[in-house]
Amino acid sequence: MKNVGINGYGTIGKRVADAVACQDDMQIVGVTKRTPNFEAQMAVDKGFPLYISAPDREDLFEEAGIKVTGTIDDLYDKVDVMVDCTPGGIGAKNKEVYAEKGVKGIFQGGEKHEQIGQSFNSFANYQDNWGADFSRVVSCNTTGLCRTLKPIDDLCGIKKVRAVMVRRGADPGQVKSGPINAIVPNPPTVPSHHGPDVQTVMYDLNITTMALLVPTTLMHQHNLMVELENTPSLDEVIEKLESTPRVVLVEANKGLGSTAEIMECARDLGRPRSDLNEIAVWKESLNIKDGELFYMQAIHQESDVVPENVDCIRAMLEMEEDPAKSIEKTNKNMGIM
Amino acid sequence: MKNVGINGYGTIGKRVADAVACQDDMQIVGVTKRTPNFEAQMAVDKGFPLYISAPDREDLFEEAGIKVTGTIDDLYDKVDVMVDCTPGGIGAKNKEVYAEKGVKGIFQGGEKHEQIGQSFNSFANYQDNWGADFSRVVSCNTTGLCRTLKPIDDLCGIKKVRAVMVRRGADPGQVKSGPINAIVPNPPTVPSHHGPDVQTVMYDLNITTMALLVPTTLMHQHNLMVELENTPSLDEVIEKLESTPRVVLVEANKGLGSTAEIMECARDLGRPRSDLNEIAVWKESLNIKDGELFYMQAIHQESDVVPENVDCIRAMLEMEEDPAKSIEKTNKNMGIM
Repeated sequence: MKNVGINGYGTIGKRVADAVACQDDMQIVGVTKRTPNFEAQMAVDKGFPLYISAPDREDLFEEAGIKVTGTIDDLYDKVDVMVDCTPGGIGAKNKEVYAEKGVKGIFQGGEKHEQIGQSFNSFANYQDNWGADFSRVVSCNTTGLCRTLKPIDDLCGIKKVRAVMVRRGADPGQVKSGPINAIVPNPPTVPSHHGPDVQTVMYDLNITTMALLVPTTLMHQHNLMVELENTPSLDEVIEKLESTPRVVLVEANKGLGSTAEIMECARDLGRPRSDLNEIAVWKESLNIKDGELFYMQAIHQESDVVPENVDCIRAMLEMEEDPAKSIEKTNKNMGIM
Repeated sequence: MKNVGINGYGTIGKRVADAVACQDDMQIVGVTKRTPNFEAQMAVDKGFPLYISAPDREDLFEEAGIKVTGTIDDLYDKVDVMVDCTPGGIGAKNKEVYAEKGVKGIFQGGEKHEQIGQSFNSFANYQDNWGADFSRVVSCNTTGLCRTLKPIDDLCGIKKVRAVMVRRGADPGQVKSGPINAIVPNPPTVPSHHGPDVQTVMYDLNITTMALLVPTTLMHQHNLMVELENTPSLDEVIEKLESTPRVVLVEANKGLGSTAEIMECARDLGRPRSDLNEIAVWKESLNIKDGELFYMQAIHQESDVVPENVDCIRAMLEMEEDPAKSIEKTNKNMGIM
C-alpha cells in the first residue's frame, strides 16, 4: 500500500484524492490547503488528514474552526509521492522543496515541461515514467488530444494533425474569469502551445494547434483534422475508438448534441461531482475525406486528467509495469467506461 | 437613379435600406414588414414608405397605429429590384412571385443556392451576376471567408483550405436562441455547408469546413488553415490583406484581443447601429508554416453582407461593369475602410 499526499486540495486535487482513495494499492495520507474554505472543511469531513500548506496561515484555519493535522512540513515524511495540484507555476517552485525532502512529485499541466523535465500520459508514454522522481501529467486539453490521437496513430499512422481547440472560459465554480460575451483567440498567435505539449508525450507527432476561449463553463471542445499514413475504413476508426478506454462515442441524434447535454448525461451516471473522465467523441462528426480524418470531441476539463494521475503514481512508484493493467485497474475502481 | 424595394425590414433589411439610401445612384422606394413592431415604426419615422408584406395583416398595423403606404402588391410596380431579407427559406418562395411580377430579386444566404440558381460575392464573382434576374448574396460566414481567401488566392494560389467556424449563438437582439452555456457542434457532421457555399462563388476552391455554436452574440470567429500553391513572405500577405477593401487587420496587443473589444472599437467608429462591415483579421495570428498560412478572423454577422447587397444591385441592374469601382463607391458612401 503506497502513501500519497495531495498538495493543493482544489479542483484537481480533491478529485485525485477521491480517485486514489478508491484504489486498493494506494491511500491518501494527507491533503494540503492554503485557504480555510469549504473545500478544506469537506476534506476533514471526508476523513482526509488536512495539512496547512503555508505554516504562517495557521491562525486563519483556527479562526475558521477547521481542525488540521499539521503543516505541510509534517506531511513530507509520510508520503511516497506528492501529487502537486497547486495553481499553475507554483508546482515548479515546489519541485525544489520535494527534491530537498527526498519526496517524489507529480505535477499538473499548468507547469512547464522544461521545468519538470518529464511529462506523462497513460496511453502515450507510461513506461518512460517508470521510477521517475518527477513528472507532469499533461493538461486536460493535451490529455484529450492524446486519448484519441494515440489509438488513431496505432491504427493507421498519422502524417499531420491540425486542431482547433475551443476552450471553456472558466470552470463552473469560478466567478472571476471571462469572457461573458465574446470569443477570445487565446493565444492570438498560431500555433498555440497545445501542439508542442502533445509532443512532450507523443514525441514524433506532427501537430499544429489554434486555440480560443468562449463563454461557457462545462467542457472544452476540439475540432480535429488528421492526415493519415494509411486510410482505414470509417468503421475501423469507430471500432478502434470504441475499444479505447477513457474514450466514449456519443451521438448528437441521441440527444447528445452539445457539451451541455453530454454533462447532463454525466450527471445521470452518478459519479462523484457528476464528472466525465472520458473523452466524448461525436460519432456523427467522424469522417474520412481524401485520406484525412475529421472529428469533434469534448473534454471535461475538471476531471479527464484524474485517472492519469493515478496511473502516473503506479509508474513512478514502480507498482505496475503494464500500462494497460494500470489503466484497467484505475478505471474499474473509478467506474470509468 | 434605380428604385430598390426591401422585402423584410429586419436585421439585414434595415441595414441594406440605410446602405442603399446613402448611395447616389439608387434609392429606397419601399420597405415591407409583416409585424407592426418597433422596426416598422422606425422605418416610417425614417421616411421609408412602409408596405405590409401580408395583406391579411392590415388590421394589426392599424391597431398598432403604424401608418402604411400599402401592401406589397402595390410595391412591385415601383421597383427595379427587390432585396429579399425575409427569414431563411421564405425567399425561395418569394422568388416565384417576383418572377410572376417581372421583378428582379436579390436573396440572402439563408436561401439555398440551388433554389435561387446564382450566388454573389463582390470580390469573387461580381461579373457573373451581370444583368441576372435573381441572385443570392452568400451568408455572413461565407462572405467572411471569401473576403480574405480571394486576395490570398490572387496573391499566391490556394491548394486547400481547412476552416473551423466558431459561430455566435444568437444576434444581440434575439432572446429565443441558445446556447446559454454550451458548445454545440452545428452541424455535428463534417464537413459543414460553409465550404460548398464558398464554392458557389469561388467555384474551384478546395475547402473543408467544420462549424459550431457558442454562447455569444457579438461576432462569428473563424480559424483558417490555408495550404498555398506558392509561399509568399508573411509581409506580402499582410500587405495584400491591408490593401484589400472591407478587410481590416487588428492587433490583440493594441487592445483588440477579442470580439468584444473589436465591437467596442466599432462603436467608437460612429457608424449606424455600431456596425463593423469589414472582416477583422488578427494580425498576430497570421503565420506561415510549411507552406501553410494560418490566421484567425472575426465577422460581424449582422452587417458584413450589407455592402455586398449594394454591389449586387449594381451588377444585376447593369449599373457598373467594374466590380472595383462599385466596391469603392459603396464603401465611400458607407464610410467603410
